[in-house]
Amino acid sequence: MNKWLLLMFNILLITHVHADPLPSWQEGKVKTAIINFVKKVTNRSSPSYVAEDNRIAAFAHDGTLWVEQPIYTQGIFAFDEVKSLAYQHPEWQTTPPFSYILRDDCKALAKLNMQDIIKILSVTHTGMSVSEFQRAVKKWFRSAKDQRFKQLYMKLTYLPMLEVMQYLRDHHFKIYIVTGGGQDFVRAIAPQLYYVASENVIGSANKTHYSTNRLPRELINEPAVLLVNEKAAKPENINLFVGKRPIISFGNSEGDREMLEWTQSGTGEHLTLLVHHDDAKREYAYGPNTKIGLSSNSLIDEAKKNQWQIISMQRDWKKIFAFE
Amino acid sequence: MNKWLLLMFNILLITHVHADPLPSWQEGKVKTAIINFVKKVTNRSSPSYVAEDNRIAAFAHDGTLWVEQPIYTQGIFAFDEVKSLAYQHPEWQTTPPFSYILRDDCKALAKLNMQDIIKILSVTHTGMSVSEFQRAVKKWFRSAKDQRFKQLYMKLTYLPMLEVMQYLRDHHFKIYIVTGGGQDFVRAIAPQLYYVASENVIGSANKTHYSTNRLPRELINEPAVLLVNEKAAKPENINLFVGKRPIISFGNSEGDREMLEWTQSGTGEHLTLLVHHDDAKREYAYGPNTKIGLSSNSLIDEAKKNQWQIISMQRDWKKIFAFE
Repeated sequence: MNKWLLLMFNILLITHVHADPLPSWQEGKVKTAIINFVKKVTNRSSPSYVAEDNRIAAFAHDGTLWVEQPIYTQGIFAFDEVKSLAYQHPEWQTTPPFSYILRDDCKALAKLNMQDIIKILSVTHTGMSVSEFQRAVKKWFRSAKDQRFKQLYMKLTYLPMLEVMQYLRDHHFKIYIVTGGGQDFVRAIAPQLYYVASENVIGSANKTHYSTNRLPRELINEPAVLLVNEKAAKPENINLFVGKRPIISFGNSEGDREMLEWTQSGTGEHLTLLVHHDDAKREYAYGPNTKIGLSSNSLIDEAKKNQWQIISMQRDWKKIFAFE
Repeated sequence: MNKWLLLMFNILLITHVHADPLPSWQEGKVKTAIINFVKKVTNRSSPSYVAEDNRIAAFAHDGTLWVEQPIYTQGIFAFDEVKSLAYQHPEWQTTPPFSYILRDDCKALAKLNMQDIIKILSVTHTGMSVSEFQRAVKKWFRSAKDQRFKQLYMKLTYLPMLEVMQYLRDHHFKIYIVTGGGQDFVRAIAPQLYYVASENVIGSANKTHYSTNRLPRELINEPAVLLVNEKAAKPENINLFVGKRPIISFGNSEGDREMLEWTQSGTGEHLTLLVHHDDAKREYAYGPNTKIGLSSNSLIDEAKKNQWQIISMQRDWKKIFAFE
């Protein structure tokens, strides 16, 4: 009997070791590049070996780990919050930009300027404690659904990217989500969606204020910006939070350019990858003319010039979503 | 033979399990409180059990983990850097505050105001890349010695606190150093001194600038303050970096009050401890009249009122330094 157990154990072990770590990826240049990179930096006898402490992986969020079209999920959350707070603010019925939201005026909403957006974020994201805000986020995600896919927003993560994260985690990488979106918003769901702890989410952040006039003591969200985590701020904030340069980075938009470039500028082995949205059938196809997720031609050109790996959603991903 | 090996293994195991995790601590109230706390929060069948992900431990640095008298070690580093840069700046010989440093004018140095300090930090801490700065810090620590103890500054860490850090690490706590000192300065030495990685050091930070006009791409330290990690900013920045409330915190000064208070305000099991410098013979004894490490009477009073554990260096620590 023991012999049988041993045999079963060995079979399991062999299966596990030889199992494809990236089953949703098509065989090809990108998949090979990822696997070769991980093999090199984790092989102690390779000159490219990287100690565990320095295996930093950075992932952009919207458009890299989950859908960002037709508008950022955090935007939809903010609109829904305005609707559910409206009964306390009868004046919003006639006050832009709130009135646009309450009337579902898509044309007007498409033209919101930065001041409008700040007004909306101010009432939906500040004035409460961080934990109260995150409770509201979690509650919203339990039922909020995307209109095109008829799925919970929580289901709109890209399965191939979840596999990459798990593959890197299995090889003792430290995984950071480096998002232009709200840090507290993404932190509320990152453990459930990505197995990424709050301390591994770096995002745009408002100032907080340690409140001594309530018990328990809480951090209160203030309507003032502390970090806007886009473009050059991505390397700056990775340095602020982590103090190390990533050796592998995934992005998809103009906002990720400097993070990818900084990763590539490291002296050791590194890998930089750009998710290209070219699959209108299964997800979206968008280029330089979209307002969201600016995967512009110039960025694609730069990716080619710098030999970043371009991930074609159409060709490189067998499956995009787990629910397919 | 196998039997013998098994026996040896069991003996090692038993010895290890029953070994005193805090050998430099005197038996007493504080040591018991630390050990009981760790047992409770790590015992799965205890109502006080805390999942590993939420076992956040926060340690202040100067005066909590190492000596901060007669002046902060980072100050001495800055003075030494001014001296070694002086040959490039003949005008410093006659320009305060640099001239005070070059003349070792202790009286004048004791009266430096904030503007003087900013001038000194500006020439010693900014204008170079983060990695260049950290190389300078590491180089300085290799030979810089404290005058009273005739020891490298690196040796002036408190052995009982190193034991606590290791004890918590063994129980899967995530350990953060939360310092009013410079984040990059402490990050340069924290892995070697405390086995704490750079991403687990939260400190005062200047702004950085992602430089695109040099290769490799680097973060350049700017002469502008981003975070001053003192008082209410400690909970605010722990929230910013970690997104979780510590369940155990160690501090020693007015700058740590809010961090300790925030820890104590958590709903689950928690422990807050204050290092009290009351040992003039082996280290220093200082109270409300010192300029550095303000372990004021009011803080001691508050600690007593709030039932924080007060660590008496004189009574609670058998040994303060490993070199004793």
